[in-house]
Amino acid sequence: MSKYYRTSKKPAGLPPGTLFYGGGKKDDGVVMTVIDYGEDTFTEKVIGRIEECFPFRDEPTVTWINIDGLYDIELVEKLGERFGIHPLVLEDIVHAQQRPKMEEFEDFIYIVLNMLSHDGETGRIVSEQVSLVVGSNYVLSFQEIPGDVFEPVRERIRKKGRITKSGADFLAYSLIDVIVDNYFTIIEKKGDRIEAIEDIVLGDPSPEVLREIQSIKRDMLLLRRSVWPLREVISGLERGESRLISAGTKVYLRDVYDHAIRVIDSVESLREMMAGLLDIYVSSISNRLNDVMKVLTIISTIFIPVTFVAGVYGMNFKFMPELGSKWGYPAALFAMVLVMAGMVFYFRKRRWL
Amino acid sequence: MSKYYRTSKKPAGLPPGTLFYGGGKKDDGVVMTVIDYGEDTFTEKVIGRIEECFPFRDEPTVTWINIDGLYDIELVEKLGERFGIHPLVLEDIVHAQQRPKMEEFEDFIYIVLNMLSHDGETGRIVSEQVSLVVGSNYVLSFQEIPGDVFEPVRERIRKKGRITKSGADFLAYSLIDVIVDNYFTIIEKKGDRIEAIEDIVLGDPSPEVLREIQSIKRDMLLLRRSVWPLREVISGLERGESRLISAGTKVYLRDVYDHAIRVIDSVESLREMMAGLLDIYVSSISNRLNDVMKVLTIISTIFIPVTFVAGVYGMNFKFMPELGSKWGYPAALFAMVLVMAGMVFYFRKRRWL
Amino acid sequence: MSKYYRTSKKPAGLPPGTLFYGGGKKDDGVVMTVIDYGEDTFTEKVIGRIEECFPFRDEPTVTWINIDGLYDIELVEKLGERFGIHPLVLEDIVHAQQRPKMEEFEDFIYIVLNMLSHDGETGRIVSEQVSLVVGSNYVLSFQEIPGDVFEPVRERIRKKGRITKSGADFLAYSLIDVIVDNYFTIIEKKGDRIEAIEDIVLGDPSPEVLREIQSIKRDMLLLRRSVWPLREVISGLERGESRLISAGTKVYLRDVYDHAIRVIDSVESLREMMAGLLDIYVSSISNRLNDVMKVLTIISTIFIPVTFVAGVYGMNFKFMPELGSKWGYPAALFAMVLVMAGMVFYFRKRRWL
Amino acid sequence: MSKYYRTSKKPAGLPPGTLFYGGGKKDDGVVMTVIDYGEDTFTEKVIGRIEECFPFRDEPTVTWINIDGLYDIELVEKLGERFGIHPLVLEDIVHAQQRPKMEEFEDFIYIVLNMLSHDGETGRIVSEQVSLVVGSNYVLSFQEIPGDVFEPVRERIRKKGRITKSGADFLAYSLIDVIVDNYFTIIEKKGDRIEAIEDIVLGDPSPEVLREIQSIKRDMLLLRRSVWPLREVISGLERGESRLISAGTKVYLRDVYDHAIRVIDSVESLREMMAGLLDIYVSSISNRLNDVMKVLTIISTIFIPVTFVAGVYGMNFKFMPELGSKWGYPAALFAMVLVMAGMVFYFRKRRWL
Amino acid sequence: MSKYYRTSKKPAGLPPGTLFYGGGKKDDGVVMTVIDYGEDTFTEKVIGRIEECFPFRDEPTVTWINIDGLYDIELVEKLGERFGIHPLVLEDIVHAQQRPKMEEFEDFIYIVLNMLSHDGETGRIVSEQVSLVVGSNYVLSFQEIPGDVFEPVRERIRKKGRITKSGADFLAYSLIDVIVDNYFTIIEKKGDRIEAIEDIVLGDPSPEVLREIQSIKRDMLLLRRSVWPLREVISGLERGESRLISAGTKVYLRDVYDHAIRVIDSVESLREMMAGLLDIYVSSISNRLNDVMKVLTIISTIFIPVTFVAGVYGMNFKFMPELGSKWGYPAALFAMVLVMAGMVFYFRKRRWL
Repeated sequence: MSKYYRTSKKPAGLPPGTLFYGGGKKDDGVVMTVIDYGEDTFTEKVIGRIEECFPFRDEPTVTWINIDGLYDIELVEKLGERFGIHPLVLEDIVHAQQRPKMEEFEDFIYIVLNMLSHDGETGRIVSEQVSLVVGSNYVLSFQEIPGDVFEPVRERIRKKGRITKSGADFLAYSLIDVIVDNYFTIIEKKGDRIEAIEDIVLGDPSPEVLREIQSIKRDMLLLRRSVWPLREVISGLERGESRLISAGTKVYLRDVYDHAIRVIDSVESLREMMAGLLDIYVSSISNRLNDVMKVLTIISTIFIPVTFVAGVYGMNFKFMPELGSKWGYPAALFAMVLVMAGMVFYFRKRRWL
Repeated sequence: MSKYYRTSKKPAGLPPGTLFYGGGKKDDGVVMTVIDYGEDTFTEKVIGRIEECFPFRDEPTVTWINIDGLYDIELVEKLGERFGIHPLVLEDIVHAQQRPKMEEFEDFIYIVLNMLSHDGETGRIVSEQVSLVVGSNYVLSFQEIPGDVFEPVRERIRKKGRITKSGADFLAYSLIDVIVDNYFTIIEKKGDRIEAIEDIVLGDPSPEVLREIQSIKRDMLLLRRSVWPLREVISGLERGESRLISAGTKVYLRDVYDHAIRVIDSVESLREMMAGLLDIYVSSISNRLNDVMKVLTIISTIFIPVTFVAGVYGMNFKFMPELGSKWGYPAALFAMVLVMAGMVFYFRKRRWL
Repeated sequence: MSKYYRTSKKPAGLPPGTLFYGGGKKDDGVVMTVIDYGEDTFTEKVIGRIEECFPFRDEPTVTWINIDGLYDIELVEKLGERFGIHPLVLEDIVHAQQRPKMEEFEDFIYIVLNMLSHDGETGRIVSEQVSLVVGSNYVLSFQEIPGDVFEPVRERIRKKGRITKSGADFLAYSLIDVIVDNYFTIIEKKGDRIEAIEDIVLGDPSPEVLREIQSIKRDMLLLRRSVWPLREVISGLERGESRLISAGTKVYLRDVYDHAIRVIDSVESLREMMAGLLDIYVSSISNRLNDVMKVLTIISTIFIPVTFVAGVYGMNFKFMPELGSKWGYPAALFAMVLVMAGMVFYFRKRRWL
Repeated sequence: MSKYYRTSKKPAGLPPGTLFYGGGKKDDGVVMTVIDYGEDTFTEKVIGRIEECFPFRDEPTVTWINIDGLYDIELVEKLGERFGIHPLVLEDIVHAQQRPKMEEFEDFIYIVLNMLSHDGETGRIVSEQVSLVVGSNYVLSFQEIPGDVFEPVRERIRKKGRITKSGADFLAYSLIDVIVDNYFTIIEKKGDRIEAIEDIVLGDPSPEVLREIQSIKRDMLLLRRSVWPLREVISGLERGESRLISAGTKVYLRDVYDHAIRVIDSVESLREMMAGLLDIYVSSISNRLNDVMKVLTIISTIFIPVTFVAGVYGMNFKFMPELGSKWGYPAALFAMVLVMAGMVFYFRKRRWL
Repeated sequence: MSKYYRTSKKPAGLPPGTLFYGGGKKDDGVVMTVIDYGEDTFTEKVIGRIEECFPFRDEPTVTWINIDGLYDIELVEKLGERFGIHPLVLEDIVHAQQRPKMEEFEDFIYIVLNMLSHDGETGRIVSEQVSLVVGSNYVLSFQEIPGDVFEPVRERIRKKGRITKSGADFLAYSLIDVIVDNYFTIIEKKGDRIEAIEDIVLGDPSPEVLREIQSIKRDMLLLRRSVWPLREVISGLERGESRLISAGTKVYLRDVYDHAIRVIDSVESLREMMAGLLDIYVSSISNRLNDVMKVLTIISTIFIPVTFVAGVYGMNFKFMPELGSKWGYPAALFAMVLVMAGMVFYFRKRRWL
């Protein structure tokens, strides 16, 4: 997979609506959890077969089905059939390389977001697709790999928070909210890294820093591509006509929208700071070249002339009157010292020393 | 806290509407002042308990409640309840890392601005969030830290200026006006600093200037982020449908709008001048490298050939006829002088000397 | 033909509507294939004379006529006459240097796309114009050179896939879809090349890399010019009023639209990574200059002073007391070693060694 | 005052509508001239007291009152009262640091423009605010400093040109027209300067050129800030609803609009040419460094090896057979010449000589 | 005249509607040709006095009056009077420094375009204004200098092509078409030049190339300024409401519009390739500096240490045991060769040799 973008591994020319898993590692199994809640009821269970969650579909309570791992295509197909999801949407859910987007359908809204996490080992940002299908009384969430940022939402449901008094749209809002809030963590980490590199670059940069600048630049590109479409997605939900989003939830979506704008602002600020780093690196190197050259110049310039004088009196001419003089040697030494002192004085004047 | 942006310290996943203080130092207490005025009445007092200001709510006179310090969350909650403010707004007021924005509600308008000040010690710009809640007959203003630029407005109220003949909307306008006017002071200070750096860079720059350029660049990013949304905020107020802003006040808002545009213009100009500084710095360094190299070249080039001549006559061959000649030494010296003079002449011609 | 763009070889001033072939090599013959299909029928044949396909025009089944090679102008004119295509469209089909565009006419829609392929020999992207004329029950496709990416579509028709249950608009969608999907392959190849160059540039770049950077830059320009207009073309089809595109097909077009957006995103990301490469190359070169200079400086600085000392004691003055001393030589050597050690110590301290 | 922008010296917090002079030098007196004309009448006089012009207000003829010097605030206030001008407009007129803008009021239109002139001494552009208040039968023009470009308009009025057959709107158009035309003069002068600098930079640039580039850059920023808003101002007048601008005059305003667009075009072209200058300067310096290094390298490289040879035969070993040989000296000299010639040949081959 | 733009030589302050010739050389006379044609009639003649073409005005056939040379202002005035052209349009026709634009009037459409040609001598692009006045049954075309690209249109009229079956709007379209097509020729020439420079820059650039880059940059600015407004002009004609343009002609205008877009695309591509050239030039110079430095370093580093050794044994100390040894000289030589070999080995290892 390319370092800059995730490309369609799907062989070009597959018929549309063909489910094809395009995501990453497949080593873990698929995990399915169902949370069903109302003001008074609460059920939470991990299910083994997808059919177990079908009964919840027709109950008035809100049902949240979360699926970790996308490679069991058959499972997704069954779910899609039961919940009446368009085949193209199923293809997008499974393909897992979508751009964040929002699509309104008659009976549900389809939302794709990127959940970012920080890979501790490589220091790189890892992007994972999260798909949400929001119906009138259910939310389906699909993630590529296990481990998510949804735990606080689950906790709030368990604790019978405000969320249990609202519908599926509020649950969807809550999930989007934690994903967006999570961006701040990522940005902060990248920000710290950029500041560290800035200090290195302003101080005593080694060529390795170039590689790191380039690597962060790539991460920033990834961040931007995840973050910019977010704005449209959320404002689409907020301003959309769909009857699935209540007016009360829209106020909260406006709040997430503000967060998204702030995320974009921060990303752009980081980008601008990044942009200057390479220039500063080049300046730093020029500066050091300058330092090196100055030392070379000073040493050379001081010794070259006096070495010449020594050379003159090292010549073997028979008739060199100075050589016989008693004061020749001290005079020559004195002249040399004089030249050296003159040079030093000149460099002092030019502020090179 | 990052140097580039203020991030959400709020733990991701907190339920929406949870008040969480996200701002800076907490060492000073909360200070609450109430100013209530009409054409004929005037009351000004510092209150100890927030409940003391509640009676003013129902009087027809204009009431301005100013709160310095945001970490007493309970206080803000009480105030919000009394004045009927939406929990999400309270969250924004207290969270203190908002982007300048304006939100119209049924009974009030919520405005967030950044008040900038110049930290004398570090020379950096310090940003503080100011929230205004403008109702039909009251204005609530919230600041993160004590010390504000509102004193002239208070003075005008005390002196029974034009402001006392108008409603709460005009008071809000006055507060926005002084905040925007304050930006000019900040910009001017930064402008002076940039000019100073420009002079240094054009003259004899040291590497420390790089660090300063980077630091100002950061300040400019902060300024831009405060200033650009301002435009929308004010034009939103001016063109908004809200019955809370009278037509008379809108003429004045158009005036502040012009100021905001000028602030943006100035910030962009500074930015453009900044942008070139790094390039000029690199040029300056290259120039100096050139100078250093020229001196080195001239000295080396003059002495290397003559030193060679001296070396030749320092050889110990038995049969070197020149060595025995009476004129050998003077001839050699003369040849050396000739070579040197030729070199000097060549450099003169190439304009290196 | 220019390396940057394909220019109009058509002599300026030809009357409009004059068919003029402006494309590339003409060495291969024109190949015409007809596929006619309905839910129950299927005909596929290579035809020798264009007239053979005319009967299909009036049958209700969907007819796809594909023409490889554009230089038989007479053939295109006959086809145009039979299918009632506007002369200006025929001119565009044949001229083969169009920008991707979409034009709605009364009876058909004219679509121009660029099919890109990767020339294995030169490593450059090769662009070929594909014109589609979509009528109510037929699709005409024109390609400059034989060999296309349409084979999977043919296969799906042969296998009586979903495509055979839909109209000509769905066939057109399928053709556009495979062309767009094909871009991902091209982008991936370029991406791999850019990453390879990045590694070279960050490592040990030779001047040849400049030539390659410039060549890839040119390819990226070509890609962008093919890809950006795509967006308008597809959204034009999706949102257009034409009765030729059914609502069912529009859902699929929205899907291709998303793909096109992702293609654009990827191209822009690659472009941004490219943009930095030249700067990094310059940094790398500066770095190496620095290395070279450091070695020169260290060697020179260490030996120049001691060589001077040797020069002094090589002078032939009669009265040089040190020369006669027994400890003169060892002392001189010792002094030299001392100076050298001092230099090395100094360089160590400055971290140059 | 900053070099980049004119800032608000008005103390932040002054009540709105307070007249405060924010402009430049105050040493000259205020000069007031009145020109009143109709098809048959013509009066022109310099007045001493502002009240002298009040009678013209109610006459049907067109009255043009021009005021040079803005620091007599009382005078402006009186005039504003008589002509019914809004206090905020008076504040803007006097404050003299406005951005070009146009505001429509019930009874008049307020226009702010920048009149630019070229300061012969410093070579810098000087900006002066010109305010126009256009009523149904009068035009008030306010300038900061005496000396304007309006003389040709006066001349045309005196000569009873077309202008005397039209209303106040045509007079306003004529004033705007001469101001815009004046920009061409300024641009041409800057253009000449930029071309001169370009020649210097391409030739033999000295570091002083950096300072000049920076100074012109600043002027271009000023020009842009004056010129861009112009577009909106004039198109606002042309497309505005105000009954004060007749349809006949709008045709002429379209003409000025075209001029303004051309001014903007020219400014942007100059800007782009400027943008490259710094890069070319750096290239030039690099080029020269290259030249210097080449000379140093050639001289050093030629003499260093032969000096070594001389050094070898200057050694005092007892047993050095060559020294005793009759051909030693000539052979050594010949070897030296050979090495030198080889070097020169090598440099020729590498095209350094 | 400036190298970057053509400025208004018209003295600022001339009354509007004053005809003033602002173009180039005046040495050739004015040439007037009239072509009058219908489906059956055809007249073509060069006329000496402008009055000779007046009778054609009232005939139903299409009349094309072409005027080469604009400095006979009286002639243009007469023509304008006869055909009822607005004085401001006449001013624009004669002034000859307009930006491409289109203006609809009651009875005619006024179109300004730039006709570009390639000056063989200087290699620069020469821009000439072409004005078209399109009425119901006539087209007036005005050119600054003789020699045009209209010959193919004339030929088509003479040959009774499709053009003679259409109205004046189709003639105008044909003229615009040949002008736009002509841009491709210009762009191709510039493209070839840029590619040639690119090869030079990537190879062995001399400083003269800088001057050429700057000169082409200027040409590209001129091209852009001619080409960008074209888009608006043609789409204005195509989408305009004027009854003078028939629906049939609009289809053809859409075709020219596509050409204009492609022209813009090509110009922008060239611009982007240009943009990188300066950077590559700097890289090339740095590369060469690197080469030069490497040679200097290698030679110096090899000889400096051995020269020092020679210096040591050239010292005249009485007690230097090595000097008396029989193996001293060979040992010293051997040591020198060893040091040299070590250096060469080191350089080989670092890949400098």
